[in-house]
Amino acid sequence: MPASMKSDHIPRATIQRLAIYVQVLEALARDGVKVVSSNPLAEACGVNGSQVRKDLAYFGEFGTRGVGYNVEALIRAITRSLGVDREWKMALVGVGNLGRAILNHGEFRARGFNIIGLFDCDPFKIGENMHGLEVKCTEDLKDFAAENQVEIGVIATPPERAQRAAGHIVDAGIKSILNFAPARVRTPERVHVEYVDFFRHLYSLAFENIRTD
Amino acid sequence: MPASMKSDHIPRATIQRLAIYVQVLEALARDGVKVVSSNPLAEACGVNGSQVRKDLAYFGEFGTRGVGYNVEALIRAITRSLGVDREWKMALVGVGNLGRAILNHGEFRARGFNIIGLFDCDPFKIGENMHGLEVKCTEDLKDFAAENQVEIGVIATPPERAQRAAGHIVDAGIKSILNFAPARVRTPERVHVEYVDFFRHLYSLAFENIRTD
Repeated sequence: MPASMKSDHIPRATIQRLAIYVQVLEALARDGVKVVSSNPLAEACGVNGSQVRKDLAYFGEFGTRGVGYNVEALIRAITRSLGVDREWKMALVGVGNLGRAILNHGEFRARGFNIIGLFDCDPFKIGENMHGLEVKCTEDLKDFAAENQVEIGVIATPPERAQRAAGHIVDAGIKSILNFAPARVRTPERVHVEYVDFFRHLYSLAFENIRTD
Repeated sequence: MPASMKSDHIPRATIQRLAIYVQVLEALARDGVKVVSSNPLAEACGVNGSQVRKDLAYFGEFGTRGVGYNVEALIRAITRSLGVDREWKMALVGVGNLGRAILNHGEFRARGFNIIGLFDCDPFKIGENMHGLEVKCTEDLKDFAAENQVEIGVIATPPERAQRAAGHIVDAGIKSILNFAPARVRTPERVHVEYVDFFRHLYSLAFENIRTD
């Protein structure tokens, strides 16, 4: 990361908003918008203008007062600072319906998050070919990760097998986990786990729905 | 909801933690655990013990001091209060890879979140049969939702079509949206939108990974 970037102390909450800003900026770029000012950007992101200005200040002077932010330049600056403008190598553990869906979801590859290895503990799945990749035994993840510099382990097992999958990923020396299984996993502190938790969202929807009836 | 429940003013952050508690409690139940005290429950959930005790206090007196919480009773109390112990009817807009994955993901149905209608604007997909449901034209969502009391609209379109899908869902009188598309959508204030945002999580992982290198 260039030394000029002030991003080494970006707070977690800002990182999460940056991902939203990128989505909105990409939508603006698709619509041919070249420059956007902070207030409409904020409105589209569901935050207030001063929050946007504060968050984007981490990236140096991208805004021009009275003019706005250059959409393409801002997308590049944010993705570069977050390290998401390069390829990330991922291994997927669990190739049932959910795992296959993740594998088929074109948006991951489009953003440089490439699944390069598939693993499962089901002997009937091992050896199967999916998207040009051969499903390997989860026991082989360690060697594969070392040989191929896997950086992110993706868990897509049923909930009762998530902890075991996390154990294999940790043993393989991978320090980032994206967990799609509806289960919490225990890992050493050096390993960072992110949960894609559908049910947290469904529970929120259900509760708000009842409350506003 | 029974009047005895104190859940009508549960804060949003608590709701999100409750979904995590349910996952951990379900894992304990699978392992045959009958009673759990707040500290191990907190540890498994990644929060502190006093937070768990405070959150669970919304559900009345489920804990017995010095003994702990009854696992099954607590799951029932939480899911009942959140309104997730009954069937929820959902309509899915967008039946590409992502939509089909959501349809195939057994965990939704297992928790009572049933997809009862499929919609797409692609004439080549309309009429196709998936999981016993016929894909209908998105224009027909309004009539379908009214006839079948659809409560949640699920968006699984590409990002550039998410806003159009949201418009159809709102027009159909549905007030809860679960959005899987990597795009923000604008809706009237009465409509509650939850974002399942894979990239927010991937961006966090990537950034933490670089920072701790």
